[in-house]
Amino acid sequence: MSASPLRIGLLGHGTVGSAFAALLDERAAEIERVNGRAPMITGVLTRSRGAFQEILAEADLIVELIGGTEPARDYLLAAMRAGRDVVSANKQLLSQHGEELFAVAREQDVRLRFEAAVAGAVPVVRVLEESLAVTPIERIHGIVNGTTNYILSEMATGSTYEQALAEAQRCGYAEADPSDDVSGRDAAAKMAILARLAFGAPVRLEDVPYEGIEHLEIDDLEYARELGLGLKLIGTAERRDGGLSVRVHPAFLYAGHPLSSVSGPFNAVTVESEAITEITLSGPGAGGRQTASAVLGDVVSVMTGGARPPAPPLELRLLEDVPSAFYLHLDVADEPGVLASVTRVLGEQQVSIRSVVQRGTGAGARLVMVTHAVPESRLRAAVALLSEFEFVRSTPRTIRVIEEEFG
Amino acid sequence: MSASPLRIGLLGHGTVGSAFAALLDERAAEIERVNGRAPMITGVLTRSRGAFQEILAEADLIVELIGGTEPARDYLLAAMRAGRDVVSANKQLLSQHGEELFAVAREQDVRLRFEAAVAGAVPVVRVLEESLAVTPIERIHGIVNGTTNYILSEMATGSTYEQALAEAQRCGYAEADPSDDVSGRDAAAKMAILARLAFGAPVRLEDVPYEGIEHLEIDDLEYARELGLGLKLIGTAERRDGGLSVRVHPAFLYAGHPLSSVSGPFNAVTVESEAITEITLSGPGAGGRQTASAVLGDVVSVMTGGARPPAPPLELRLLEDVPSAFYLHLDVADEPGVLASVTRVLGEQQVSIRSVVQRGTGAGARLVMVTHAVPESRLRAAVALLSEFEFVRSTPRTIRVIEEEFG
Repeated sequence: MSASPLRIGLLGHGTVGSAFAALLDERAAEIERVNGRAPMITGVLTRSRGAFQEILAEADLIVELIGGTEPARDYLLAAMRAGRDVVSANKQLLSQHGEELFAVAREQDVRLRFEAAVAGAVPVVRVLEESLAVTPIERIHGIVNGTTNYILSEMATGSTYEQALAEAQRCGYAEADPSDDVSGRDAAAKMAILARLAFGAPVRLEDVPYEGIEHLEIDDLEYARELGLGLKLIGTAERRDGGLSVRVHPAFLYAGHPLSSVSGPFNAVTVESEAITEITLSGPGAGGRQTASAVLGDVVSVMTGGARPPAPPLELRLLEDVPSAFYLHLDVADEPGVLASVTRVLGEQQVSIRSVVQRGTGAGARLVMVTHAVPESRLRAAVALLSEFEFVRSTPRTIRVIEEEFG
Repeated sequence: MSASPLRIGLLGHGTVGSAFAALLDERAAEIERVNGRAPMITGVLTRSRGAFQEILAEADLIVELIGGTEPARDYLLAAMRAGRDVVSANKQLLSQHGEELFAVAREQDVRLRFEAAVAGAVPVVRVLEESLAVTPIERIHGIVNGTTNYILSEMATGSTYEQALAEAQRCGYAEADPSDDVSGRDAAAKMAILARLAFGAPVRLEDVPYEGIEHLEIDDLEYARELGLGLKLIGTAERRDGGLSVRVHPAFLYAGHPLSSVSGPFNAVTVESEAITEITLSGPGAGGRQTASAVLGDVVSVMTGGARPPAPPLELRLLEDVPSAFYLHLDVADEPGVLASVTRVLGEQQVSIRSVVQRGTGAGARLVMVTHAVPESRLRAAVALLSEFEFVRSTPRTIRVIEEEFG
């Protein structure tokens, strides 16, 4: 039953590329047993080695593990136009040029798989593309960046942001330049991809507003702990008022939320739909071997005839100003009338307060409030006004709260 | 781009069958948009309506939602032999006649999908068959019966078994005759199916030893709560000593285990492998609409050319006597020398004790112990000897403990 081998052209031989090559070696015999055809790498392109056109000519399938948008985009387009199936782990590329790639894949009737671009070994891309392909999804919440989840887990046990980041770097969970992770930009790219798959609308990285975790303080984590809330960097994509909102920001989660117990460098995604209630997928979010494992799963998927590329995009208005409940933290002077002034401003801006706690005295006095759901623009307007008070001694901090029966 | 519709013959029109027909109606237009082909039900077989041969003649695909082994088995075999793809939600059938069905599907080169047979809308079958098809899996732990998980969640908040069962029946989470669920037999069927997919070995329902939750006492749940342990009905399938162990039993889980926070009528499955560390999938385990949603996902999978049937089975020895840590609960007379006698018997049977607590006095005295890992046979032998002591006043209770660094 043995057929000719599946010839793979591998672009990129960094951490993931070399892990993929090693894993393919280990598993080639098992893949042949299960699928009747062995995969083999027939060419490798690195910065200093190989020529793309030659590799393409000898390959049935191109695996792109270079990262970045160029030349990865050129290579994938050329490969698909030459009738080759392609596998990529490239979240930057897919979140910025996804529609172009999908359109060419449809035109050429080739496979384009990219499980490893989101959430490492957690098979959320496949589940959205296949198991839930025709399920009307209402909302996705995701912890899709392991670096920030690790840092927040460390901060939850008392580390400062700086200590937690240093520890993440020491363990290999954060890069020397962590800005793409801690700013929320990496998570925004992944949420753009998930939103496209779940809702069919063309969402690009630049459409996704994001906030990072750099400005979180130990205070905020302490408050979360006292209330039994988790503080996580959450990506959200949800239908609302006939449109779609996709965004990334830190959020307090109530204790029973499926994502609130996800700690360390893990990823998890919850998909909500009336038909299925909610399902959650979780696992390690990164690591060369885990990512390589997802890439290999895509290679096998191509061999067995997995899903077609996403259908042409739907029109869906992207919303920018959606309501959330907010946690609001104000450093205030300990003097009479402060609370009255603050509540008056919030009232004028129609920000309704659910709970308020005044803490500390003298130089350490602060007001911690949780609001009812309010459009972000209105909350921001209120915060701008509050900042003008002399008794407000540092920039107010705001963090969204995801409530149990939110919406 | 519209092709002729996919004609579906639907066998069974009970809770899941009618939910499936309704869901298909709702989604037909979206399925056509995404896949270029609309599905339609061209025949329905119920006890009182329809003739199988006529339905088969007019169908491209047979969806079997009758349940039970016969006549479901006959129908599926006949459909595949007539070259039809088939979708089934039938765990009894797959766990008892899976190899026969898989062999015919391979011979006839047709699709046989059965996502809904295990864990409802949680896509564990697809993830094992496709994403992890060539990943060497070491262990699966699953909460694969929502009824028992609901009952245990209720007991954890102070209900007796009888109260919790009555509540489950009132909410529609348990049937009038709950024996298949509470005995662990339903979970054993599902674990047999998962073990076949994960390990390639032909595991049948009758190969899976199972224990249910009928004999658990509030005492046991109280003990779990005090120690921060969860008490769950856990299905396990794991490689061990060159063989395979598949079993279902109540187990204490340490607090950080991904399954320990799964409560209510939910299902969850954790897959462990060196290459991926571990991934967990969770969601609602049952419900007509959730199950119908999984069936519809399979129909779409067949339309888009999803995975082939499992490869021919591998030889793998099934182990019966595997080591576990145990919780051991003894009602004892409050008299001198009891602890000494108990520990002597355990020592003679080479059961090593990790912790022991003596509780209560007089008529309420009891010994609660946790052992180190010990083969089940040796623990059973020790318990049989302990039962012979006059000071042991009721049958000793034993529950397995899944430890953080077990194995």
